[in-house]
Amino acid sequence: MAQELDLLITGAEIITAADRFSADIGIRNGVIAALGTDLGPARETIDAGGLLALPGGVDAHCHLDQPQGFGLRMADDFASGSRSAACGGTTTIIPFAAQIKGQSLRAAVDDYHQRANGKSCIDYAFHMIVSDPAPAILEQELPALIDEGYTSFKIYMTYDDLKLNDRQILDVLDVARQGGALVMVHAENSDCISWLTDRLAAAGKTTPQYHATSRPQAVEREATHRAITFSELVDVPILIVHVSGSEAIEQIRWAHQRGQRIFAETCPQYLYLTAEDLGHGHYEGAKCICSPPPRDSANQDAVWQGLAQGTFSVFSSDHAPFNYDDPQGKKLKGREQKFQYIPNGIPGLETRLPLLFSGGVNGGRISLHQFVALTSTQPAKLYGLYPRKGSLMVGSDADIALWDPKRQVTIRNSMLHHDVDYTPYEGRTVTGWPVMTLARGKLVSKDFEFVGTPGAGAFMRCDKPML
Amino acid sequence: MAQELDLLITGAEIITAADRFSADIGIRNGVIAALGTDLGPARETIDAGGLLALPGGVDAHCHLDQPQGFGLRMADDFASGSRSAACGGTTTIIPFAAQIKGQSLRAAVDDYHQRANGKSCIDYAFHMIVSDPAPAILEQELPALIDEGYTSFKIYMTYDDLKLNDRQILDVLDVARQGGALVMVHAENSDCISWLTDRLAAAGKTTPQYHATSRPQAVEREATHRAITFSELVDVPILIVHVSGSEAIEQIRWAHQRGQRIFAETCPQYLYLTAEDLGHGHYEGAKCICSPPPRDSANQDAVWQGLAQGTFSVFSSDHAPFNYDDPQGKKLKGREQKFQYIPNGIPGLETRLPLLFSGGVNGGRISLHQFVALTSTQPAKLYGLYPRKGSLMVGSDADIALWDPKRQVTIRNSMLHHDVDYTPYEGRTVTGWPVMTLARGKLVSKDFEFVGTPGAGAFMRCDKPML
Amino acid sequence: MAQELDLLITGAEIITAADRFSADIGIRNGVIAALGTDLGPARETIDAGGLLALPGGVDAHCHLDQPQGFGLRMADDFASGSRSAACGGTTTIIPFAAQIKGQSLRAAVDDYHQRANGKSCIDYAFHMIVSDPAPAILEQELPALIDEGYTSFKIYMTYDDLKLNDRQILDVLDVARQGGALVMVHAENSDCISWLTDRLAAAGKTTPQYHATSRPQAVEREATHRAITFSELVDVPILIVHVSGSEAIEQIRWAHQRGQRIFAETCPQYLYLTAEDLGHGHYEGAKCICSPPPRDSANQDAVWQGLAQGTFSVFSSDHAPFNYDDPQGKKLKGREQKFQYIPNGIPGLETRLPLLFSGGVNGGRISLHQFVALTSTQPAKLYGLYPRKGSLMVGSDADIALWDPKRQVTIRNSMLHHDVDYTPYEGRTVTGWPVMTLARGKLVSKDFEFVGTPGAGAFMRCDKPML
Amino acid sequence: MAQELDLLITGAEIITAADRFSADIGIRNGVIAALGTDLGPARETIDAGGLLALPGGVDAHCHLDQPQGFGLRMADDFASGSRSAACGGTTTIIPFAAQIKGQSLRAAVDDYHQRANGKSCIDYAFHMIVSDPAPAILEQELPALIDEGYTSFKIYMTYDDLKLNDRQILDVLDVARQGGALVMVHAENSDCISWLTDRLAAAGKTTPQYHATSRPQAVEREATHRAITFSELVDVPILIVHVSGSEAIEQIRWAHQRGQRIFAETCPQYLYLTAEDLGHGHYEGAKCICSPPPRDSANQDAVWQGLAQGTFSVFSSDHAPFNYDDPQGKKLKGREQKFQYIPNGIPGLETRLPLLFSGGVNGGRISLHQFVALTSTQPAKLYGLYPRKGSLMVGSDADIALWDPKRQVTIRNSMLHHDVDYTPYEGRTVTGWPVMTLARGKLVSKDFEFVGTPGAGAFMRCDKPML
Repeated sequence: MAQELDLLITGAEIITAADRFSADIGIRNGVIAALGTDLGPARETIDAGGLLALPGGVDAHCHLDQPQGFGLRMADDFASGSRSAACGGTTTIIPFAAQIKGQSLRAAVDDYHQRANGKSCIDYAFHMIVSDPAPAILEQELPALIDEGYTSFKIYMTYDDLKLNDRQILDVLDVARQGGALVMVHAENSDCISWLTDRLAAAGKTTPQYHATSRPQAVEREATHRAITFSELVDVPILIVHVSGSEAIEQIRWAHQRGQRIFAETCPQYLYLTAEDLGHGHYEGAKCICSPPPRDSANQDAVWQGLAQGTFSVFSSDHAPFNYDDPQGKKLKGREQKFQYIPNGIPGLETRLPLLFSGGVNGGRISLHQFVALTSTQPAKLYGLYPRKGSLMVGSDADIALWDPKRQVTIRNSMLHHDVDYTPYEGRTVTGWPVMTLARGKLVSKDFEFVGTPGAGAFMRCDKPML
Repeated sequence: MAQELDLLITGAEIITAADRFSADIGIRNGVIAALGTDLGPARETIDAGGLLALPGGVDAHCHLDQPQGFGLRMADDFASGSRSAACGGTTTIIPFAAQIKGQSLRAAVDDYHQRANGKSCIDYAFHMIVSDPAPAILEQELPALIDEGYTSFKIYMTYDDLKLNDRQILDVLDVARQGGALVMVHAENSDCISWLTDRLAAAGKTTPQYHATSRPQAVEREATHRAITFSELVDVPILIVHVSGSEAIEQIRWAHQRGQRIFAETCPQYLYLTAEDLGHGHYEGAKCICSPPPRDSANQDAVWQGLAQGTFSVFSSDHAPFNYDDPQGKKLKGREQKFQYIPNGIPGLETRLPLLFSGGVNGGRISLHQFVALTSTQPAKLYGLYPRKGSLMVGSDADIALWDPKRQVTIRNSMLHHDVDYTPYEGRTVTGWPVMTLARGKLVSKDFEFVGTPGAGAFMRCDKPML
Repeated sequence: MAQELDLLITGAEIITAADRFSADIGIRNGVIAALGTDLGPARETIDAGGLLALPGGVDAHCHLDQPQGFGLRMADDFASGSRSAACGGTTTIIPFAAQIKGQSLRAAVDDYHQRANGKSCIDYAFHMIVSDPAPAILEQELPALIDEGYTSFKIYMTYDDLKLNDRQILDVLDVARQGGALVMVHAENSDCISWLTDRLAAAGKTTPQYHATSRPQAVEREATHRAITFSELVDVPILIVHVSGSEAIEQIRWAHQRGQRIFAETCPQYLYLTAEDLGHGHYEGAKCICSPPPRDSANQDAVWQGLAQGTFSVFSSDHAPFNYDDPQGKKLKGREQKFQYIPNGIPGLETRLPLLFSGGVNGGRISLHQFVALTSTQPAKLYGLYPRKGSLMVGSDADIALWDPKRQVTIRNSMLHHDVDYTPYEGRTVTGWPVMTLARGKLVSKDFEFVGTPGAGAFMRCDKPML
Repeated sequence: MAQELDLLITGAEIITAADRFSADIGIRNGVIAALGTDLGPARETIDAGGLLALPGGVDAHCHLDQPQGFGLRMADDFASGSRSAACGGTTTIIPFAAQIKGQSLRAAVDDYHQRANGKSCIDYAFHMIVSDPAPAILEQELPALIDEGYTSFKIYMTYDDLKLNDRQILDVLDVARQGGALVMVHAENSDCISWLTDRLAAAGKTTPQYHATSRPQAVEREATHRAITFSELVDVPILIVHVSGSEAIEQIRWAHQRGQRIFAETCPQYLYLTAEDLGHGHYEGAKCICSPPPRDSANQDAVWQGLAQGTFSVFSSDHAPFNYDDPQGKKLKGREQKFQYIPNGIPGLETRLPLLFSGGVNGGRISLHQFVALTSTQPAKLYGLYPRKGSLMVGSDADIALWDPKRQVTIRNSMLHHDVDYTPYEGRTVTGWPVMTLARGKLVSKDFEFVGTPGAGAFMRCDKPML
């Protein structure tokens, strides 16, 4: 080998979405230059004997520094969020650039670039959130932004300040079809939720547990079926985000066996939390409020089965960080503490991978290859970051998580690196942890410590999705 | 037998939804007094040897004298409509009292009573159409009207002047649940239709055949799934009207095997017409424009199978009479002749029963009992008219259709008794025809001639549905 | 009315599979002569005010006086069995004429005629059991017997002394197709059962509860799917007997939505017993051993839903009477008391109708009409006994059960009229009981007492099934 | 790099089941030593610019030199078969060691080792065919052979000389469960086929086209459902071989969504042939006789969809070579030329990969990664040959197919390297061909020429399946 390597990682077993083999990893200029034996001299060497080398995680669904109404505030910005991600084995994040109704999409994108700039310690891209598909946006801004590397966008079927009506959704899907972009859909029926919420409110049922009652599975299933219909009419693939249980899964499988290209994502909360967690303590259930809400153990099983059988393509955190003991967070400054006002979302960037690894790989439910595919390769492909991200191969960025598959860790919020004051997984013990994480060939975390550099991460222009 | 009978019908085979037997029918005061042999003297006798005595049809879905926008006009009022029905073996009709947005429901009901009064030759009841569920209507008018005998109402998921949004539908269903009423749902997704229509219009595709293109099955299937979800959330049975093909049927069956109480109706146009009929002639396809549109022969088979297997409870005409060669009808006064402006609906009160009898009973697809159940017994039960209507039994009204099951008839509009200038079934030959029809023991049609009396029919207050 | 009536039943509400009405019932020569008011003089009158008049039950699946191997003996012959049936509201039974391998079918039929002759107090017909479809039987005996009024026959997919292999089943179905007969199928996979039984035996698991373990639902589901396939290949309807739970039901529904004509029967044991009942006491679970075995409460719900939704056409007892405390019964003379040797079957002729009436009609799960259809009209039609049996109409036999729908009865074996020493329903309280039963116009039971005449029942030649 | 490489392949794009990247491939001692750039000096270099480097195919279903009854003879032995495979891009074959009833399994294995020894030009392993699971075989031979590296075996549900009854299948599955082996199932109902065949024969319908009539999809579907049931009862995964169409696929999907581990294989004949091909010419349809038979174009679509959606794990040839114009082949020496006597099977080792590549990858139906997974990685994993076979990674055997993805080739039997006198794909043009194939780093085919060495292939002991 002519040129000296910057770094040589020796002794690890390399895991990809398909393969497993022992080889040294030679890195030069932040890129994998070679895989093999006897790769020659390197300026630096990491002995990874006994560890597994996995492609660093791609967290394709997380919210950072996203402004909220009513004086609420997200607890993580791009610095703390990316730091937490890196310490959990994730090397790329794709947060949202959220359009406010009335705002231009480009203004939203510019705003989020400012928020991210100089802060993220790992590479990042953006999904746009399209909340106001005015004609100019559909005809000019959106096509232009797709071409500039923003090739995915999320739409909402619920939340008053975000939701699109059916016709708007068809319009947005049509732009995606023409531009080759991928639309992510938050599928819950808005009217049903508000109708149920008002009835619960009228009955004085407003503690956190009723959040789950106000959004039963039927509400998610209906919207999922509707979104599948839109995808069929427009003839464009879509991705259903954060699928919570068996009823939405049934619709997605139904679409699959009709030959439709419906992609689906799920998250740790649907594997590890239940609606009962929303009823714990007097108000503490607020910590677990997210939408769709966690269901029950039978639905957890259904989601695990969906992961095992390929129903899901992507496993994300849906990190949406609000402090619990904070008037600008779950505790609600200047508002009644009723479930319908509590900000939706839970933190999860750092725990996403260990939770899936522990219950999935070590629990015998999914293979190591499925783990890699769900957490890195498939999101990288679907969101246009592959082959730079998403695998360990010659030519890709040296984004590598070195896992100790037997390491037992009891999760405590005190050990996590986000700026949120709690984790919903406090006290859970997992087996398997990424003991070193490298981003472009540089260590960003080691032995539970952050060793990276804020601002070292770069913005990634996304190619067209590989659907 | 102490009292003399008014009328004795001898020699017919009596068919009910379950049974078949030979007996004389003794009638007194318009009511069946006895079934048997040797029933004693009668003032009048009809020899029905060789004929089948079926309960007169209940047509639970027809539009008469319903005001239209844009100078359009329905061709049938209660006189001509009921006359046509009677000549086709139907002895009860349930047209609509349609609320105009802004109008009170009671005003609508009063209006339609005026329209019917003194005109109908057979008994009639009303479904209401709820197009504007304002609070006062939901809280006061609707519950009161249910109690007064208007126990069913129809809602629309499409048509700008009629459609309810999801939240309004939930509200209406909830009133139905509390009052024990039955909601009929026109299930098509409005936004999808308008989006597709605009694209067709933009492409200059506006001839009648594109009506079918603008409302594909997916649009009906989606709304059906959504309506089923609302029924589940509110916990109240509903009835999906005019189901057109396999995709909506699939959703209804799916609901059935989950244990939901979803009733369904279909109509002759989904057995005998196809989307191709909309493309005939230069403009003549307008004659077959109705919504949902007819599909194709595979879907006709699916609808027949649904009839045979009990997926459907009701078979109605959805009679919506517009002249073809009429500027106030399909030919469109003062408007471009584009599919999106053509009034939806086809005539069918008189041909409903012979078409089903011929293709269903004589075609070996359904039994005589299923024929009776679909066309008379089940609509009578579902809409609160049973036991006065819907069967031939002691104590019920002597509404009787005497069928010659082998009579061959070639349908010509010239032989029909409506005031519409065409029938979509022109030239079709059917086997089996109701050669005499009695309403409350009086002949209203005989050998293709109308022999009844306008105004002889009475308004029927409906009991609660037997669900 | 010219001729005097023999009997007039006044004041009852008459219930058929479709209708409900108040009328007097006039009976002459054991046949219903008229239904109506003022039916004129009768030699005898029964005041049935406050009662429901239902067609007497047709129990289409019961075993009487059927010889068993190993010194076992059925506890009921045609005298005690028919007596018990009559006291439970049943007026027609269709037991089996079972061919022994090597025996001619005609010899079997003759043998059972001898067993029935002069003993049955109500009318009866026979299904044949075909256990040995030798060429002569397929080609000559079976077609001839069909023509003589034995138009249904049962085949077994399990039990060594009865089962047919796949090829034999195809042959038998083909004869049924040609002759227009109906084949009833006992669907359980024999090899699976024996394989599982041997494993249980090897593990010393031989108490009664393991009977259920040896025949899991998968074993019934597989055979059901296979039988459905045979029906498809031969193009002939079949009827699956004693369906026990959701997995077989799923297959039957799957066949229905493919358009296949698969009929299905279930029995009280699948509504009221569970596999746990087989584990009661040291050995007492033997009382509940039947095949397929009872399942669990979720499956009971599935069977109820199947009854409500029309998946099932027939509800029978599968009465197979063995004493419990009897060496010739469940207690097993001269054999180890292991589940695999315990005779399969439970008594149920007398309790069939009250159990369904109580849980179904009074429990709000099925309508009175469905009750009549399942227990009388549909079995009469499917087995060629209609219109003589199966409904209350002019011209049919005056087989009438007069029900007190509110009568509460606690079932005790001491009150039942079979010759079996137990009932699996001991101590259960039901609401609704047939307080008088008439067979051909003669009272056979009244107020829990048998008042009929052994031998008064006649053999019924069956017409072709009305499929 | 310290040691010199034996061979360096430069310029290819490497494709694995998950990844695609450009890198040189360094080979030493027949094994991949490194992937990367600047891999240093090599004794030999292949310039693969513009080509794709795929792992060589693993053909997991082929019959070679398998003795037949009635004087029939397979046309290919291990020399010609392996040669043909190699020229089609396949580098590992897994033919069968077939037990004859009465024979010991070990004797069968020994026999086939003799047949293969010194002949195969590429590596090979064996599946056993278990046709006689006598106790000694189940208890001793089979477990011992599993431990010795024969970790998969095939069973038949049809063919008189091969088929097992249900109980035997359960026994064999149980041994597989205990030993961690994988059972392949030929799923067709034997009795149904023979019953249908006899009816066709009786009707004089014996030309080749009736082969398809004698084995309709229902026959395959039933056996598939039954095999799935056995898998459930024994709790062991199975693999259904050569799935032909939508009905069996429906059962496999049904099992998947219940959470069962059912693997499935399909073959080129179900993508490219139809039942109509069996009717071509007077007798020439015999060339396409295989079992299950090819279906129709709708089923071809269903199989393509199953490949795209992951329903299938393996794509094999089911190469079963019989000459057409040969009394020891399809032309039938000394026997009537009726479909039921024609040897089942078609040749396909050499055309398997190009047919799938052309229609699948170039046809836009599957990705390159799915192609690799189906044809190499997954069969290698399922049959215990991974990581030596099945991918291109450091440490695996240098079994490499270099594809020209745009090369157009019209298939002619004259260009193929098997010893069969026809190909069913004569005259079809495909796009994409493996222009060079290397087995353990040595060229075995180049530009349609065989350049390998008979006997160079080694027997591969299989590890336990990676299920």
